Amino acid sequence: MPAPAHLLMGTGELAINQDFSISLSATSDPRLEIAASRLMAHMSKRTGMPLSPNAQRPVLMIECANSGQPVQSLDENESYKLSVTPQKAILSAPNPLGIIRGLATFEQLVVPSTAAGFAVPALTIEDAPRFPWRGLHIDVSRHWMPVEVIKRNLDAMSAVKLNVFHWHLSDNQGFRIESKQYPKLQTMGSDNLFYTQAEVTDVIAYARGLGIRVVPEFDVPGHSTAWLVGYPELAAAKGPFEIGRTWGIFDPVIDPIADYTYTFLEGFIGEMAALFPDAYFHIGGDEVNGREWDENPRIAEFKREHGMLAKTGTPSKNELKLSDEKLQAYFNQRILAIVKKHGKKMMGWDEILAPDLPKDIVIQSWRGQKSLADAVQQGFQGILSSGYYLDHMDSSATHYAVDPLIDPKTKQPLNLTPEQAAKILGGEVCMWSEYVSAENVDSRIWPRTAAVAERFWSPQTVTDPNDMYRRLDVLSEQLDWYGVTHRSSYTPMLDRLAGTETADTLRTLADVVTPVGLGGRARARKYTQQTPLNRLVDAARPESIVARRFAAQIEASDWTAVRAQLILWRDAPPPPQNALLQETAPVSAALKQTATLGLEALNFITSKQRPLPVWTMQATQILTDAKKPKAEVTLAIVDPIRKLVEAASQ
Amino acid sequence: MPAPAHLLMGTGELAINQDFSISLSATSDPRLEIAASRLMAHMSKRTGMPLSPNAQRPVLMIECANSGQPVQSLDENESYKLSVTPQKAILSAPNPLGIIRGLATFEQLVVPSTAAGFAVPALTIEDAPRFPWRGLHIDVSRHWMPVEVIKRNLDAMSAVKLNVFHWHLSDNQGFRIESKQYPKLQTMGSDNLFYTQAEVTDVIAYARGLGIRVVPEFDVPGHSTAWLVGYPELAAAKGPFEIGRTWGIFDPVIDPIADYTYTFLEGFIGEMAALFPDAYFHIGGDEVNGREWDENPRIAEFKREHGMLAKTGTPSKNELKLSDEKLQAYFNQRILAIVKKHGKKMMGWDEILAPDLPKDIVIQSWRGQKSLADAVQQGFQGILSSGYYLDHMDSSATHYAVDPLIDPKTKQPLNLTPEQAAKILGGEVCMWSEYVSAENVDSRIWPRTAAVAERFWSPQTVTDPNDMYRRLDVLSEQLDWYGVTHRSSYTPMLDRLAGTETADTLRTLADVVTPVGLGGRARARKYTQQTPLNRLVDAARPESIVARRFAAQIEASDWTAVRAQLILWRDAPPPPQNALLQETAPVSAALKQTATLGLEALNFITSKQRPLPVWTMQATQILTDAKKPKAEVTLAIVDPIRKLVEAASQ
Repeated sequence: MPAPAHLLMGTGELAINQDFSISLSATSDPRLEIAASRLMAHMSKRTGMPLSPNAQRPVLMIECANSGQPVQSLDENESYKLSVTPQKAILSAPNPLGIIRGLATFEQLVVPSTAAGFAVPALTIEDAPRFPWRGLHIDVSRHWMPVEVIKRNLDAMSAVKLNVFHWHLSDNQGFRIESKQYPKLQTMGSDNLFYTQAEVTDVIAYARGLGIRVVPEFDVPGHSTAWLVGYPELAAAKGPFEIGRTWGIFDPVIDPIADYTYTFLEGFIGEMAALFPDAYFHIGGDEVNGREWDENPRIAEFKREHGMLAKTGTPSKNELKLSDEKLQAYFNQRILAIVKKHGKKMMGWDEILAPDLPKDIVIQSWRGQKSLADAVQQGFQGILSSGYYLDHMDSSATHYAVDPLIDPKTKQPLNLTPEQAAKILGGEVCMWSEYVSAENVDSRIWPRTAAVAERFWSPQTVTDPNDMYRRLDVLSEQLDWYGVTHRSSYTPMLDRLAGTETADTLRTLADVVTPVGLGGRARARKYTQQTPLNRLVDAARPESIVARRFAAQIEASDWTAVRAQLILWRDAPPPPQNALLQETAPVSAALKQTATLGLEALNFITSKQRPLPVWTMQATQILTDAKKPKAEVTLAIVDPIRKLVEAASQ
Repeated sequence: MPAPAHLLMGTGELAINQDFSISLSATSDPRLEIAASRLMAHMSKRTGMPLSPNAQRPVLMIECANSGQPVQSLDENESYKLSVTPQKAILSAPNPLGIIRGLATFEQLVVPSTAAGFAVPALTIEDAPRFPWRGLHIDVSRHWMPVEVIKRNLDAMSAVKLNVFHWHLSDNQGFRIESKQYPKLQTMGSDNLFYTQAEVTDVIAYARGLGIRVVPEFDVPGHSTAWLVGYPELAAAKGPFEIGRTWGIFDPVIDPIADYTYTFLEGFIGEMAALFPDAYFHIGGDEVNGREWDENPRIAEFKREHGMLAKTGTPSKNELKLSDEKLQAYFNQRILAIVKKHGKKMMGWDEILAPDLPKDIVIQSWRGQKSLADAVQQGFQGILSSGYYLDHMDSSATHYAVDPLIDPKTKQPLNLTPEQAAKILGGEVCMWSEYVSAENVDSRIWPRTAAVAERFWSPQTVTDPNDMYRRLDVLSEQLDWYGVTHRSSYTPMLDRLAGTETADTLRTLADVVTPVGLGGRARARKYTQQTPLNRLVDAARPESIVARRFAAQIEASDWTAVRAQLILWRDAPPPPQNALLQETAPVSAALKQTATLGLEALNFITSKQRPLPVWTMQATQILTDAKKPKAEVTLAIVDPIRKLVEAASQ
């Protein structure tokens, strides 16, 4: 996973034993050496076999035709060919990136076999990505993510062939990178939680070894409160400013007409452009509410002078809004000049789109395929993020169904010429960090991101969600070896909640609930950056494998298994009682109640009796109540049980 | 855990919220600052609460009367007093070590409470250790343990108040530390798996911050093959030598009469004595078979000259053995002079004991309390390791029952005067690494070592195994926060074995089996250092919690629970079939068979019927067969089911 473009199964298998070794065809790209030794280390870890340092006969031959570009570019060739016979494996590619992708494939294929200890099945794969831009965006501002979190996620990204790490480094809630030129950015804007430039350089080098570009984002002119704490002279309103502790669209905004702003940004962007080698530089540009621009007489005067507002009269609300958009376009033009001067192409969210921008900018669409289509029809390039927001807590299947080239409403391909379609470069999964910490962020990113990675890499025709889940479950376990904690953080988080009691009963409950999305959380209580994320909702995973398997048992009319499962839930003792788990009492009550209902329905089904309409009515009410979020989690077995009730009532 | 010497429960509890902070009474020992910030980090991690950096009112007040010694010594005061009220906690100690111990206690007390989110119960503890030497010995030679393994185990040691890390740095299978003076020791004797001196210094500093002494061991004159690979001129026989890949008592041995040996050891011990600040230096000294001494005419001549052998005639086997012991005593005397010259006290295994050694040496007894009593009766000091060998795969309760001052056979206190008894300084748990790797070593060390740590720290009267297990289960979960992987490595190891299938069925089996001890493994197959440790026996834990709970249910005549459990085992599908799991088929068959038998027994019991004698006879045979190790694991539910069968047959 992601499924390869072309796969031909062969006969037999290549045994992987302790003599496994690799040969590298001569090439000067150091990434190949790095990739080969990483593979050796991974193989040893995954199989639990010490590999012989003196193995003579190479089992895997790597043949790479050329060196790659000194800075990984958007249009580098990532194709590879992998051919495995019972005697040996040959991986060839025109470019080191293809080798890196092919090794990710090879690794996944190593599993215990019936005959040998470990083996790779004989096969031939010819593979290349569908889209050149396959990214993961991580917000490190709202909650801090240390370097180790970033690195392990880079490792896992590489395993599913993602190639862009979009690093959301500044926002209202924290400025997360060291500026040597403007040190108050980090000293006053980060609670001392920021990356040093040495760390950033290290992460970029690490990512390069994995075939991943690093695109930094510095969100301006909105989402910038953290900048203004140290440098209030950048602001459109009078300071002082404090680091944002809550979230949403804030008023503080950069002054787009002051010379100081551009002097500052010239210096800052120059510094960052030198630090980040990638060709693209993301300036954010989203969600400016314009309030502080509107209230600043100097700015109003500027607008009138520059024809953004009528010279006289009180502008209407709509006129003000339009004037703010023009003002932001003006700001963007000036930023663009700076970004270009430092050799970068500009990138931003939908809002930066303006006809007079150059066509080599990239629009990142959080608004959807329609917005993206508009952009490419105007000749811009774009990537899709709408539909890939992990904080909505949607299922892998939901994200998997979102295609950058298909209208989600009509399910039809976007109405684009091939040239226009080619300007849709791919997409990015977005991990916004309002409701995640370093402890549980991996469990939100993985394995769901792997489903989207397949969308970005594999042929458009690969769409079967059942087959996706079958492979995703295997991959999710394999990702453990890359160090991501999406599975391993679950147990300690449940143990913490259970305190000195066993967490077994809590686990039974946690296994069948999913966290509500960010809307549900915002409505449930007043969160700040300091609110502990240590509750059931934080430990629960975005998808319930148990509920999915239960639904499949119902689908298959496997009534014995369904009954056993329902009895288990009905009779499950409640989780331990303590202050942290108090809120879960209604959730366990709902589990018990729906399981009881499910058993009643099952009895009707298996005894071939029909319930009275009043039973069905009551059942529907129970399910409606059970479906409502409680303690910010949703009971994932309600929908499967509704199917049972429907089957019983038919 | 370990249970404190004096505990008085109070009324109410001290809430631990995000304003938790610590005050330190003025003192110059930097370990207090380290300990306080470690506690803050741990508190945040364990509770999942970001702590406020600006909290004003200290919740925990630390009062330390004096600074400690520059190098932690054997006789430093480790006592502390902890008093917790609903308003605040006060931790006081005469020495920073006491503060470190008290903080370990405080941490364990922080749990979710009924009223507040987290809290510590009101109480007063006055605590001090029973023994001053409470160690963990880790062999890093037979299997390599990277620095991270050592550090996380130091963290966990500190959590249970152990204070000596005994680092077994050289043996036949690897020389694991950099010598600048004799670099071929590590370059030729370690497969390039060794600690640099910088790493060693870092580990020692890390341990000091945790109140742990680091005692290095360089085993001579036997167990020294790895030395001889690079320096064959040290050997009593002609080389060349190769790193040992198997284990046992090897022939290669250092030449005890050559001047070169003592010049070399003078240089080497000098270098190591400067690197390791601890007052003690462990020279091993165990298991010399003498064969190569006996075969060397030069050495025979030396023995005759020095009265170790008769001047003429062919010595008997026994005379040779005695002469070798005398020769080793001679060697030890010369080593002692070197060790002393470099300011250290000597330490060694039982075999070094000789009347003419100075009384400040420490004998580490792998032979038992009797051997230890002999030593202290002669005026030496000693520590016990017999009974604390983790590779025997005994239960926590078994190790817990071993007391350094009690004869294991008679269960009576050793016949010692108080002065003699005081010379028994404590003990060390031993983790020999023939059958462990960095991946599963923690699961062998923890939680069992915590039970022994309680033996070393708590009053001798604390001996109830049920109470120990109740607390050990809680502690074992808490140890996750110290980074040891004794619980977390289980899932990936099972997943690896299951390959692309779910590991659920394998887990059901693995949960109720325990690995055989080192004897069982040696008999089962020919192991070498390169043999993969990736099988069921390597994933299985030394104690089965599931089997222990099952036994308790039988004990409590909780027949409903017992029946449910037995049905689950009887009906459990077999684990996935692949080359790695093939060997487990007889184990799952035995599980099914014993569970079926258990259900039959239960039916007799609950129906108050008596089985025919032939049933009992067959049952006994089934249990005998089931008890035999298969695939190097033992089925842990056989003994509980035997109780059922006995109850049914009575």
